[in-house]
Amino acid sequence: MTREEYLKEGERLDSLRRDGYEIIQHPGRFCFGMDAVLLSAFVLVKPGEKVLDLCTGTGVLPILLKAKTKGEHFTGLEIQEESADMAKRSVALNKLENSIDIVCGDLREAEAYFAAASFDVVTCNPPYMTVEQGLKNPNDALTIARHEVMATLDDVLKCAAKMLKFGGRFYMVHKPERMAEILRKMSEYGLEPKSLRVVYPYADHEPNMILVEGKRGAKSGMRIKPPLIIYQSRDVYSKEVSSIYGPELV
Amino acid sequence: MTREEYLKEGERLDSLRRDGYEIIQHPGRFCFGMDAVLLSAFVLVKPGEKVLDLCTGTGVLPILLKAKTKGEHFTGLEIQEESADMAKRSVALNKLENSIDIVCGDLREAEAYFAAASFDVVTCNPPYMTVEQGLKNPNDALTIARHEVMATLDDVLKCAAKMLKFGGRFYMVHKPERMAEILRKMSEYGLEPKSLRVVYPYADHEPNMILVEGKRGAKSGMRIKPPLIIYQSRDVYSKEVSSIYGPELV
Repeated sequence: MTREEYLKEGERLDSLRRDGYEIIQHPGRFCFGMDAVLLSAFVLVKPGEKVLDLCTGTGVLPILLKAKTKGEHFTGLEIQEESADMAKRSVALNKLENSIDIVCGDLREAEAYFAAASFDVVTCNPPYMTVEQGLKNPNDALTIARHEVMATLDDVLKCAAKMLKFGGRFYMVHKPERMAEILRKMSEYGLEPKSLRVVYPYADHEPNMILVEGKRGAKSGMRIKPPLIIYQSRDVYSKEVSSIYGPELV
Repeated sequence: MTREEYLKEGERLDSLRRDGYEIIQHPGRFCFGMDAVLLSAFVLVKPGEKVLDLCTGTGVLPILLKAKTKGEHFTGLEIQEESADMAKRSVALNKLENSIDIVCGDLREAEAYFAAASFDVVTCNPPYMTVEQGLKNPNDALTIARHEVMATLDDVLKCAAKMLKFGGRFYMVHKPERMAEILRKMSEYGLEPKSLRVVYPYADHEPNMILVEGKRGAKSGMRIKPPLIIYQSRDVYSKEVSSIYGPELV
């Protein structure tokens, strides 16, 4: 099959700038953003570990983590059929069928697909907004990706806590406005916050993202990491963000 | 009385670099640090408001807030007699008896001294360390200032929640390691976290302080403010920190 034969109508191929991997996306649906890329750099996956990515969408995180780590296996769980279908074709296109599984299913019923406490790492780039925050069409694919229609923060944390081994690590990217709620609920679900990185667009701006790590069953006590500054000047990425993205393909 | 007549043996006078105010400190006891100064810049006191400072020590926060804001009245509560005595003499030395009261007492019994819900703002620069963290001599003045011997985080939050009017604001400086616990407990005591500022010694270092604001009875949802960087290069304060300290006296 040629690369183009993996695509359906209206879809395009985007470079992931790692190991030659590409990803199938549809401009009218949810396309991955910087949050997924920064999350992939924040996540620690040790050699041999098994990783579950919740709300995987088009599978960007499993593919990036496969490129960046020596994890043994990666599973992406996605509730929207069209997104899961794109993710499966991206896995096939990149010849990663032995390393990555994409499962189309509901994380509120994750135990129907996976054994409890069977993952070393759970990652998630979840919908950031509650259903109260400007919700228009609850069946729209973009709405489902952005709002907690199909999975709330509580659903994500409950699922992660069930799927993680004792001592396993949870990594999530989210919005600063919800930080207090996130840290409190992580504790409540037994995913004790262990580290946090605050992402600021510029050194003198309020942050637009937080990256948080929890550990299942751990005691209280956390590290806040150095600030992650996205732009060093207008339209110029900081050295750190440039190196996270990797070299642009010419 | 001359300035020197306010001092007891071993004490010294330090400039607060605001409105000509000075503070009495004892080199062998707890002396205020940058955390108190940064807290004084983070606190918002509106004209006419009443402020209570818990764990006031030698009274640095009430004096700085009197200099920096148009608050109507400031009260400092301190459990250690010698510190409260120094604070009272600093208030007298600066002729601030009409604006600042220093009360020697236990914040766990604050209702014995003050009416519930009678303050617009409560501030605190509390002991950062638990009694488990390297505690040596629990009766030592420095130990009481640094460890939760006389007041735990829970005691501070419970007292602040009792003393604040509905909608009143709570401001605290603390250690990043305890951030998850702090935000969770603030919610539990009804002091919903509303804003946070992370203080980094250098732009590429982990932070050493957090400044947090809570609001009594508020709904969930918070702002993280731009990073506060202390040093722009070795031994050189950033412009923001220099301006918080104010001009040095020559």
